[in-house]
Amino acid sequence: MSKHGVSFITEVRVRYAETDAMKVVYHGNYLPYFEDARTNLFRNIGIIYTDIEKAGFYLVVLEAHVKYLRPAVYDDILQVKATFKELPALKLTVDYEITRKSDGVLLVTGQTVHAFVHAESGRPIRPPKEYFSIMQKYFQ
Amino acid sequence: MSKHGVSFITEVRVRYAETDAMKVVYHGNYLPYFEDARTNLFRNIGIIYTDIEKAGFYLVVLEAHVKYLRPAVYDDILQVKATFKELPALKLTVDYEITRKSDGVLLVTGQTVHAFVHAESGRPIRPPKEYFSIMQKYFQ
Amino acid sequence: MSKHGVSFITEVRVRYAETDAMKVVYHGNYLPYFEDARTNLFRNIGIIYTDIEKAGFYLVVLEAHVKYLRPAVYDDILQVKATFKELPALKLTVDYEITRKSDGVLLVTGQTVHAFVHAESGRPIRPPKEYFSIMQKYFQ
Amino acid sequence: MSKHGVSFITEVRVRYAETDAMKVVYHGNYLPYFEDARTNLFRNIGIIYTDIEKAGFYLVVLEAHVKYLRPAVYDDILQVKATFKELPALKLTVDYEITRKSDGVLLVTGQTVHAFVHAESGRPIRPPKEYFSIMQKYFQ
Repeated sequence: MSKHGVSFITEVRVRYAETDAMKVVYHGNYLPYFEDARTNLFRNIGIIYTDIEKAGFYLVVLEAHVKYLRPAVYDDILQVKATFKELPALKLTVDYEITRKSDGVLLVTGQTVHAFVHAESGRPIRPPKEYFSIMQKYFQ
Repeated sequence: MSKHGVSFITEVRVRYAETDAMKVVYHGNYLPYFEDARTNLFRNIGIIYTDIEKAGFYLVVLEAHVKYLRPAVYDDILQVKATFKELPALKLTVDYEITRKSDGVLLVTGQTVHAFVHAESGRPIRPPKEYFSIMQKYFQ
Repeated sequence: MSKHGVSFITEVRVRYAETDAMKVVYHGNYLPYFEDARTNLFRNIGIIYTDIEKAGFYLVVLEAHVKYLRPAVYDDILQVKATFKELPALKLTVDYEITRKSDGVLLVTGQTVHAFVHAESGRPIRPPKEYFSIMQKYFQ
Repeated sequence: MSKHGVSFITEVRVRYAETDAMKVVYHGNYLPYFEDARTNLFRNIGIIYTDIEKAGFYLVVLEAHVKYLRPAVYDDILQVKATFKELPALKLTVDYEITRKSDGVLLVTGQTVHAFVHAESGRPIRPPKEYFSIMQKYFQ
């Protein structure tokens, strides 16, 4: 456990459904991979996303950025590393690195930026205390 | 306007996102095309799906059936014909035929079966009267 | 190992990307789950789909049928059981049952029908001998 | 026709398939909307993407950036404006603005960065002369 953040690696296997006619993963389909990895990063530190919604909040996406270095293809096993590098303030940033499991080659990097909002009003709020205090542990 | 049902044709152009590594439309991606065609068939006879939800109902999918005769490819313009062949009872059935616009070749056929449900309880109900009476006009 | 076929269960966890505005899995998104399960059923008996393509064949989808009994929601862990019930002739049929892992409730059933084709000509062929003989073992 | 670039607006209507359990368009599903708009921008100035592939090239995606200002919901008609702001060198950049047709509110902005590659080798190349000269007309 680092004091400068926390990472978690999720493995996904590329579905045929996620490829396109260039015989590679369609560029938009990396965002669900990021979602998988982000959800598991949260889960691994004790934050279950469905609990966030039950408490009346959404964690919405404000920005997404992806750099495509090399293509992934059907049936590749990908290791999607998601990292919290900074303690969230109004915004919460997650960084991603996707590597091909078979040879460790880096294929894709990215970042998403999020905010907590009240589910009903849609208004952005600071991270609720119970989640903030969990994340704080990784930045002391 | 036939007394034995009603049809409507929606045109869709195949996105790269919808193809797969066989360089054809992924078989699961015809269901959104059916959805487009079904929604427009409803709209064309005066039933706006968002109004159904505002009235507190969902029109859920109970079954989907697809036969793949020939593949569609990237940038094809498809004509998706949706047809109500029977006056709905508890279930509402929609039939589909997808043809390639350039040469009229039939590529895909299918059928979906639906029911109205109360959005809150999820319980299936007969088609609400206002929608039933609209559909009834096509079966006299 | 049954002599009347062979099954394999694949677990998938529902992504936010796969849900829709009814707060359930979009009906078209069960087909990629079937794909996952079918690929793993093949893999488990020693048939790697990428090898089929390397040998110059595609296994195409001729039909898909889905019955939606109860909805799956975000973050559900689903057990997708894929079964070969019959020795393939010209066509190869796979049956599916999706149950919610937490309580074993059956949510979705389905079937897909496939054929081997030559990748270049697109012409359907009988299952190549090496794959047929593997499958034959489960039907003696 | 501006000498500082060229834009084209494509209309898309949001499918149920493209929404998620927050009752808004899933953030990854704006990339296919960008794709639609980019393809039509090309088409409108006389570059047909399928011709690029027939000539032995791919136009691959190197980067994608999206900012989500306000959510789009089911059945919204969106106007997706794609713009070439700079004459391409090794890279070709497209900017996007998505507005809701009903009230003109800006919902999403974004940018994708592309390169031409040889389809066989995958090696990046400068824009082929025939496409470059078409684009050059918009920057004189």
